[in-house]
Order: sequence, then structure tokens, then C-alpha cells
Amino acid sequence: MLAIICYALLAGSFDHYGILSQVSIPLALTSFAGTVLSLLLAFRTSQSYERWWEARVVWGAIVNDSRTLVRQVKLFMPQTAEGLAVAKEFARRQGVWCFALGESLRKLDHSDKVTSYFAKSGTDSGNKPNMIINHHSDALAAATEQFKLDPNKQVQIDATLARLCDSMGKCERIKNTVFPRAYSVLIHFLIYVLMTLLPFGLEDQSKLVEISLTIIIPALFIAIEQTAILMQDPFENRPTDTPMTQLAKTIENTLMEIVGEPPVNQIEPPVSYFIM
Amino acid sequence: MLAIICYALLAGSFDHYGILSQVSIPLALTSFAGTVLSLLLAFRTSQSYERWWEARVVWGAIVNDSRTLVRQVKLFMPQTAEGLAVAKEFARRQGVWCFALGESLRKLDHSDKVTSYFAKSGTDSGNKPNMIINHHSDALAAATEQFKLDPNKQVQIDATLARLCDSMGKCERIKNTVFPRAYSVLIHFLIYVLMTLLPFGLEDQSKLVEISLTIIIPALFIAIEQTAILMQDPFENRPTDTPMTQLAKTIENTLMEIVGEPPVNQIEPPVSYFIM
Amino acid sequence: MLAIICYALLAGSFDHYGILSQVSIPLALTSFAGTVLSLLLAFRTSQSYERWWEARVVWGAIVNDSRTLVRQVKLFMPQTAEGLAVAKEFARRQGVWCFALGESLRKLDHSDKVTSYFAKSGTDSGNKPNMIINHHSDALAAATEQFKLDPNKQVQIDATLARLCDSMGKCERIKNTVFPRAYSVLIHFLIYVLMTLLPFGLEDQSKLVEISLTIIIPALFIAIEQTAILMQDPFENRPTDTPMTQLAKTIENTLMEIVGEPPVNQIEPPVSYFIM
Amino acid sequence: MLAIICYALLAGSFDHYGILSQVSIPLALTSFAGTVLSLLLAFRTSQSYERWWEARVVWGAIVNDSRTLVRQVKLFMPQTAEGLAVAKEFARRQGVWCFALGESLRKLDHSDKVTSYFAKSGTDSGNKPNMIINHHSDALAAATEQFKLDPNKQVQIDATLARLCDSMGKCERIKNTVFPRAYSVLIHFLIYVLMTLLPFGLEDQSKLVEISLTIIIPALFIAIEQTAILMQDPFENRPTDTPMTQLAKTIENTLMEIVGEPPVNQIEPPVSYFIM
Amino acid sequence: MLAIICYALLAGSFDHYGILSQVSIPLALTSFAGTVLSLLLAFRTSQSYERWWEARVVWGAIVNDSRTLVRQVKLFMPQTAEGLAVAKEFARRQGVWCFALGESLRKLDHSDKVTSYFAKSGTDSGNKPNMIINHHSDALAAATEQFKLDPNKQVQIDATLARLCDSMGKCERIKNTVFPRAYSVLIHFLIYVLMTLLPFGLEDQSKLVEISLTIIIPALFIAIEQTAILMQDPFENRPTDTPMTQLAKTIENTLMEIVGEPPVNQIEPPVSYFIM
Repeated sequence: MLAIICYALLAGSFDHYGILSQVSIPLALTSFAGTVLSLLLAFRTSQSYERWWEARVVWGAIVNDSRTLVRQVKLFMPQTAEGLAVAKEFARRQGVWCFALGESLRKLDHSDKVTSYFAKSGTDSGNKPNMIINHHSDALAAATEQFKLDPNKQVQIDATLARLCDSMGKCERIKNTVFPRAYSVLIHFLIYVLMTLLPFGLEDQSKLVEISLTIIIPALFIAIEQTAILMQDPFENRPTDTPMTQLAKTIENTLMEIVGEPPVNQIEPPVSYFIM
Repeated sequence: MLAIICYALLAGSFDHYGILSQVSIPLALTSFAGTVLSLLLAFRTSQSYERWWEARVVWGAIVNDSRTLVRQVKLFMPQTAEGLAVAKEFARRQGVWCFALGESLRKLDHSDKVTSYFAKSGTDSGNKPNMIINHHSDALAAATEQFKLDPNKQVQIDATLARLCDSMGKCERIKNTVFPRAYSVLIHFLIYVLMTLLPFGLEDQSKLVEISLTIIIPALFIAIEQTAILMQDPFENRPTDTPMTQLAKTIENTLMEIVGEPPVNQIEPPVSYFIM
Repeated sequence: MLAIICYALLAGSFDHYGILSQVSIPLALTSFAGTVLSLLLAFRTSQSYERWWEARVVWGAIVNDSRTLVRQVKLFMPQTAEGLAVAKEFARRQGVWCFALGESLRKLDHSDKVTSYFAKSGTDSGNKPNMIINHHSDALAAATEQFKLDPNKQVQIDATLARLCDSMGKCERIKNTVFPRAYSVLIHFLIYVLMTLLPFGLEDQSKLVEISLTIIIPALFIAIEQTAILMQDPFENRPTDTPMTQLAKTIENTLMEIVGEPPVNQIEPPVSYFIM
Repeated sequence: MLAIICYALLAGSFDHYGILSQVSIPLALTSFAGTVLSLLLAFRTSQSYERWWEARVVWGAIVNDSRTLVRQVKLFMPQTAEGLAVAKEFARRQGVWCFALGESLRKLDHSDKVTSYFAKSGTDSGNKPNMIINHHSDALAAATEQFKLDPNKQVQIDATLARLCDSMGKCERIKNTVFPRAYSVLIHFLIYVLMTLLPFGLEDQSKLVEISLTIIIPALFIAIEQTAILMQDPFENRPTDTPMTQLAKTIENTLMEIVGEPPVNQIEPPVSYFIM
Repeated sequence: MLAIICYALLAGSFDHYGILSQVSIPLALTSFAGTVLSLLLAFRTSQSYERWWEARVVWGAIVNDSRTLVRQVKLFMPQTAEGLAVAKEFARRQGVWCFALGESLRKLDHSDKVTSYFAKSGTDSGNKPNMIINHHSDALAAATEQFKLDPNKQVQIDATLARLCDSMGKCERIKNTVFPRAYSVLIHFLIYVLMTLLPFGLEDQSKLVEISLTIIIPALFIAIEQTAILMQDPFENRPTDTPMTQLAKTIENTLMEIVGEPPVNQIEPPVSYFIM
């Protein structure tokens, strides 16, 4: 950002006082370079938004499948106290999964809820959310034996687990796939080209106007690109992030309601985003 | 809106009478800023439309799955009076669900139909539509025990419930996800930049023409952006909304027809949208 | 259309003989307004095409699911004369469904085939295609009892019925969702603005050329928008429609072939569209 | 193409020698008409590419589902010589299906492989690929009775047949849906308008340059549109086609490998496309 | 690239010293040709990115389905040492599959892991990944007989195999489908046209500026197109590739964790891409 302003000032003064002051480049050419840049930025903006939106859609699916998982477990287990106990255990574990996924995507230290869960379970893993799905799977195997569960029902619950596993993998994909750097390089290069051409096209203007314009216009492009950069990585602990902690809290409360337990989290109205 | 007209007048008069009257900025530059703005607006318009259309698609899926749910319950229950009674109960409950979902998305007070349903059922929840799906699930568990339902059939009805739960979650996602404010800010900023540049590019025109143009052109951009804002939040109790009440009424009538009951709602031809 | 030509002539003559004849608006500004309009039209064109194509895709799915339904019924029923009779009945009913859906989407009077089907069945409904799916469902329930059908197979046929129900709901959604009028209004307004600005930018041309241009250019935009309007509602009994009658005939013949019956419709080569 | 060059020459000479030689139309207007045309062409190009790509995706799905079908039949039949014989029969029939589908989409005469299959089976149909799926279905019914196949497995194989039926229907949809002619007409009209306007905007150029430009620029647009036309119909026996014969051969070899038979086709490296 | 610079120099000098030095082509026309080129490049860029992203999505699905496969095998086999042995065998085989797929897509020699697997199994195939899926299928058939597996469970595992088979087919489709060459040809042709027109529009500039511009601007377009070419084929052993080896290693470690084995690969932080 700062580098760009310096460059703009430099280019502008060069144009005036340097040996290049007789040179003038038609504005049509400059505005044509701007059109190319605009189209590249439009592509960039739209792809970044797609990533951000996909992240949100995936977490929407996590909300739905979490509810469905617990509802199915409750529905398919025998309608007894033991069956309900299994459902409650699934609900608690699924709540932990949501927090664990959010935290590992943001590469944060795990919260107390998650670490105490793993301490209790006596297992550990580099990929904690995946380990929790394995625990779900083991618990399902145990419940199948205990209650002689019909295979159809076991398969249906397993299918929901597979969908959760899919959502987890999609988050990892978005997190780990770098947006092709070549496009950033091209866009930056075009902004510099534009900044170099611009002063030569404004020859006949007053110096003040010329300098303001050579600063404002590239700044606009930079702003658009920065916004795209913020949007494209939605799991980086930034205000534009997918609100994973918020969602995890809401999910956990709903899961508790499904199995007839009181809510465990207090939901605050979302504020962070608007501050931006 | 008003602020913008004032700003335009101010910028225009400054240009004429102020110390800046010798300054002129080439129109090519202005129209180039306009191209950037156009591309951003095209992106904005298209994303808002996608949200609006997705909302409509989700409610279309709710129509279909509601019908399918009741049809399946009727088909899979024993073809007796008791089986039909269960199907009728599902149909009624599903009708309430549609209204409850629409009202909670619009953050309206719940209608009599919904409140009386919850009064009768003796339960309550912050997320009423989700609670009704739990009731469906409980009723399915009860019917499975009562009629010794084949697990295959139970699983199939459960899959339809899972799809309804998905649609509900998608509506919540659209409702709760704020469109990235950064883009609105950028667009507003670009409109102001354009308004400031425009008068300097029209120097040699008559004052009247200049002022009209500096008002009309930004007004056009504002109008396009406002339309996008209206479209992007389709559950806000506005004429451009997804017609959820209308759809809920139609769904309820069709459900009643499937279980052989007379229609309960009178459908009026949709008028609201055209008034806009 | 005519209104627009009149307006163009009016605006053109005003420009020449009226008090505004000294006024001239730079062409760059006009062509910039045209860029905004082009982007809006590009959005409009692309969304209308999407609707048209989606309608075609949905009817493609109806073709496939109709075939699959009858094939499944034939496959899952016992391989006896009675089983085949059920499949034939399904084939006939599904044929009627295709015609009923096409006709009710176009809001036409129902054809003899459909009315005689409902006369025979002794039922009636405001939503005839949905009623026929209910009949399918009832026939499936009856066949299940008669042949002690395995629940797995019943569920599979039911899933195909659910897909047909989905396709029906998608057609209804496309039919009943008005394309946001706000965009039409904006586009029309922009065309008028363009027509008003255009003559002032062509000041130095001969009168004849000026008038032809102020007519031809807006006419082009109108033509593009009209095409979009034709495409966006693909069930309106127009030559650009989804060819539903043609498709229904083809479907019915194929269904008859599957159950070993002779074709019932004569397929004519599609001609209507090319006339346009 | 030729007509257009003639028209360009005519328009150009008219401009020079005719009575219109005093008329000059600003180039800004011409280039603005060109922008509209570009956007329409961009839309056209992108939609044609989508159709071409969808055709390729559908054939990709056919590859996958063919493999899956034979693998499933082999897996679900008893692991005996008789079970394997059924799988081999399915593999051979599925190979024929791929060829039959490709040939009927291209409206070619059927190859020996297909005609000899139908001669042997003693059946015939106007829609040969659909008839082969019916044969699959009949063979599945027979095998179910012979081996007392579990309904679950039968249903799973049937689901793969339904997906193949879907892919077939999608190919038919792409084949039979004409791209809306209105857009071609608009594009051609715009090219003519552009060619008429262009010479008047180049008044002050040498005659040679003017004529070359009035030929080259419309020729470019025509070339872009022609490419779109080639892409939009991917089953027309042209070098840009989906390589269906090549794919059918590969599929058949893989199917043979799955059931433990030697390959039946020699695959040549694809060359046709690069010749273009 | 070099050819283009030479051409630019040639065209530039021709313009100055040749007989064409009186000819001048308006810059508006040139920038209009540039607009067409920009739109084609925008289309090209966006389609290439789609292919690259689809490749990444498919490998994301492979990650998920690999985990799901092993988890399901472990869940559905009896919870005994023998059951676990089968799951371990599946985990190992699935690990090999990931490497085999990556290597055959890149047309590399197979690694030791893969060749030793095939040496042990005593089979071979031109399409190694497909052969491994067949081995999965055979092992599933054997386990079904050994443990009297419920058909429901067998079918569910088979469905996961079918999804893996789909992902494999999608990779092959992306690998084998050449991006339509016609568009590359058009884009190159347009770049040459632009380079030829450009010097004639810059007549009144200093020679140095003119030559730099005629080199820089086409170079930009070439750079954008080259980036698109790199992105469109994501399995070519280039730094912009889908990181298949990295992914295969991660998958194998996770699979080992699921069946309770120690990790077999050391994961290095991804570096290659950033070098670009």
C-alpha cells in the first residue's frame, strides 16, 4: 500500500521534471489497460466471493447434518432411557466436533471443551475432528451390538456421518488451497503499469490534480483486490470469517434441545462483522 | 439518497465558483472509473439475484418435500383408518411447520395457527420449526412401534425429514449471512469519486445540463445498488420477498388434498409484487 | 416499441428546433451510460437463458424418470401377467401425467386424454398432476399388498415418484416466479435516458443520420430485452417454449414400448421453433 | 461468410462514391455498438462452451457408471461360474449400449456390433439405447429369480441403471434442444450494423486501410460466433465432437478387464481434434 | 513469446520507415479490438480456473471418500480381530490407490509402493487405479461371504466404491479433454491483429515509447493466456498442479490412524507452489 503511494509520487515527479517530460501517452491506451485490469479484478472478486460463500454453505450443511445426526440417533435407538443416553452422548460429542473443527481450521489452540474431551477419551490425533468422527463411528458400532440395531438404520446414521466427513474435507480443501498466485502477480503488475502510464496521459493538468489522481485510482484497485484477498480465505480468524464459533454455539444449543437438555451456551448477537 | 443529491450540487457549484474552476479532468478518466463501478455493480447484482433465486429454489424444495413427506407417510402406513389418521396428523403438522418457518425467518410474531399448535403440544422452543421437525420424528418413532413399520420405510421417511431440515438450514443461512459490507463500501466510495470527477469533465457545458447529469448518473447507480440490496435479503417482509405465506397456504391445501381433507386456506391471486 | 420510436423522434426534433439546440452532451458520457445498460442487459439475458435452460433440464429429467418409473415397476413386480398389467397401468397413468403437467403449466384447457382419465378415475383436483402422483402412490400401496412386495423395492419406486414430484414442483416454481420487475424498470429507464442523451451528442451530424441512429440503437436494446422476456417464461404457449406436448408424446411412446405395447402417438418433426 | 465480405465491400464503396460520402458517424458510437456485440458474443461463447462441457461430463458419467454397473453385477451375483457368466453378459451388453448411444446421437447408421446384437436378441426399437437398458432390466429380473438375489442388491444395480438412463436422457436433451435462434439473429444483425457504421467512422483514412478494416473486424466476430456454433452441438460428427467412439472403445475394454476377458478394441491415440 | 517480440519490433519499424508511414488507424478502433480480446481472455481465464478448481474439488472428494470407505469397512465388519484385519487391508489398498491414481494421471512411472503392490497381487492392468477398485470389490465379496455381512452394509460400502470410481473418472475426463483449440487460435490471432494495429495508432509518439508499448501490452495478454494454459491442465507435473502426492500421503496417514496403525508418511509443509 505505502509502497504504491511512493511509487505513484515517484512516477509523477519523474514525468514532470525528468527527461521524459516531453513524452505523452494517449489516455485511451491507459483506460484500455484499465479495462483489462477491471476484468481480471472482476474475475478475482467473483472467485473469492465463491470461496467465501462456499465456506458459508459448508457450515450451513454442518448445522443441518448435526441436527439430523442427533435426531436420527434419537429416532433409531430404542425409545428407552438407555437409547436416550446414547443420543445425549452423540449430541455432546457432535457439539465438541463443531468447536474442534472451527479451531483447527483457524489453527488456534483448542478450547477447554475440546481438550477436556480428548483428555477424557484418552486418545489424541493431529486431525482432531476426524478422530471425533471415528469415535461417533465406534459408538455407533457399540450401540448396534447393544440394541441389535437394524442394519438399515445403522447405514442411515452412517450416511449422515459420511456427509459430516465430506463437509469437514471441504473446509480443509478451502483452507489448504492457495488461490493461484499467478493472478495476484498479474494484477499487481497491471496496477504498476497503470500507475506508470497514468501521469503521462494527464500532462496538461495541474500538478496537484495529477498527483491526486495517480494516487486515488490505483488505490481503488488495491482496495478491491484487498477485499478479494480477505474474502478468499474464510478461516483465518478475521472479521470477514465464517462465524464458526457463533455457529458452533448455536448448533450445540439446538442439539441439547433435541435430546431434551438445557442450552449450554449463551448466544450473543453477532457484532464483529459490522465493525469492519 | 438525499445526501447524494446534496453532495452532487455541492460538488457542481464548487467546480464553478470555487478556486478549482480552472481544473478539468478528462472525461475518459471519469468514464473509466465508471467502468470499474459498472463491473462491481454487475457482480453485486448477480450475487444478490443468486441469493434471491436460491431462496426461491429452497422454498420450491420445501413445497416438493412437504408433499412427498405426507404422500410417503400415507403410502407406508398400513392402509387403514389408523394409518390415515397418522398421515392426517403429519399433514397438519407439516402445514404448521411451513407457517412457522416463514414467520420466524421474517422475525414476525407467530400466527394463531402456530401459537395454538405449540399451546396444544405443551412444548416451546426458540427455534420453532426445528421443534416441529422433532415432533415429526417423535411421531414417526411412535408410529413405527405401533404399526411395526419396516425399517426401510422408516428410513425413507426420515430421509425426507432430513431434506426438510436441510431446506430450513439453508433459509437460516441466507437470512443470517450478511452480504460482505466491504463491497457496499467500495461501491459507495466509487459513486462519490465519480460524482466528484464528473463536473470537472463537463466544464464546457451549460450549468443546467451539468447539474442534471451529475444528479442523474449517480442516481442510476444508486438505483441499481438499491435493487440489489432489496434482492439480497429475501426474508425481510418486503414486496420483493419470497412469497412464503402464499406458498405455505398452497402447501397446506395440497397436503390436505393428499390425505383427503377439504382445503383450509383460500388462495388469493398474488398481487403484492406487482405493486412495487 | 412504437412508443419508443415516437419518443426518439420527439427527442430528436426537440434537440434541433427547440431551445435546447445549443446544448451538447459529450458522446463519451452517452457511451458510458450505454456500458451500464449493456452490463444490465448481459445479466438479464444470462438469467433468462438460465430459466429457459432449467425448464428444459427439468423436462429432460421428467423424460428420464418416467422411463425409470415404468422400468422399475416392471422389474420389481412379479414377472407374471398380473405384474405386467400393473406396469401397463403405471405406463398409461404416467403418460397422462406428462400431458396434464404440460397443459396445466400452460394454463390450457385439458386435452381429452386427461379429462377422460379423470372422468374414469372419479376424482378431480385443482392440481391435476399432483393428483395423478397420488394415484401412482395409491396403486403402489395396492400392488405392495397384492404381491407382498419387498419394502426395499417399494421404497425405490417411491423415490422415483419423489423425483417426479420434485420436477413438477420445479416447473411450478419457474412458472410462478416473476422475474424481478425492478430490473425491467431500470433497463427501460436507461433506454429512455440513452435516447434522450443520444441526439445531443450527435449535434454535428446530418438530420437524417441522427434520426436513424436514435431509432436503431435503442431498438437494438429493446430487441435484446424482448428476447430475454421471451426466454424467461418457458411455459407460456409460445414458439420459444419448452416443447412439452412433443416431449409428452415421445415419453408416452417410449413407456408403451417398455411395457410391450404399440406406440400411441405419431411424432411429427419439430417445426414450430424454426418458424420464429 | 462470403456474403459478409461482399456486403463490407459494398458498404465501403458506397461510403466513398455514393451520395452519403459527406456523412460521418463518430467512431465512439461504432465502438459502443461493438461493446454490445462483444457482450452478446461473450454470453454466446460461454453458453456454447457449457453445452460442450456438459456433453463431456455426461459421457464421463457414462464411463463411470458403466464400470460401476459391471463391477456391481460381478460383486452382487454369487461368486460362481454362473454368476460370472451373467456379469460377462452385462459387460458385453453395456459395451454395445455405449456404441449404440454414440451412433444414434450422431444419427449414423448403426455399426455391425449393434446391428448384430439386435439381430441376435430378436428385438428392435426406434430408440435402441433405451431398448438395451430394458434388456439389462430384464436380465436383472431373470438373475434375481435364478440366484434369489437380495432385494437390496437388486435395487442398487437398478439405481445404476437409472443413472445410465439419466445420462442417456441428458445426451438426448443436448442433441434435441436448438440454441435459441433469436440470439443468432441478433448477433448477425449487430454485425451488419457494425459493418455499415464502420466505414463512415473511418472517413479520413486511406481506402485500402479502410477496406481491410471493414473486412477484418467483422470477420473476427464471425469467427468467434462460428466457433460457438461448432461447440454448441457436440454430437454432430465433427472434429470438435465429444469423442464418443473413442470413449466407447475404452469403456468396452475396461468392462472386459473387470470380468476377466481380453480387450476387444484397439485404442488409437486421439488425433482428430488437433487437425482442426 | 520471443516470436511475438520480434513481430512487434518488425511491425513497429515497418510503420516508421516503410511505405505505410502515412497510414494511421484511430486508437479507438485498436482499443475496441482490445475489448473483444479482453472478453475472450476473461472467458478463457474463468474456464481454466474452473477446471483447476474442479480438479481440486475432485481430490477433496477423494480425501473424504477414502476416509469414509475405511471407516465404513471398520464399522460394518464384525468388531473382532479378523474384522479389523480386513479394514487394515482396505486402508492399505486405498492408500496405494491414491498414489496409483496420482501417478497415472501425471503419466509418471509408478512408485515402488504401487509396483510392489501389483507384484504381490499378481495382477496387472493398463488402468491401475481401476484395477485396485476391482480388488476392493473382490475383497468386499470375500468378506461378505466370510462374515455373512448384511446386504445393506455391503451395498453401502459398494456405494462408496462407486463414488471413488466417479472421482477417478472425473480426473480422467479433465486429463483427457483438450481445451477447445479454436479459442487459443482466436486469441493468438487477436493478439497479432492488436500488435499490428497498435503502432499505427501511436504515430505521433516518440519511437522509444512506441516500441515499449507495442511490446508491453501484447506481453500482458500473452501472460494472462499463459496463466490460463497452466491452470487448465492440473495434472501435468507442474508447480500449479493439484498437489496429489502431498494429498495421497496425508490420506494414507489418516487411513492408518482410523485403523489404529502408526503414520507411514512424513508430511512436509507444501513449498513448491510458492516458488512459482
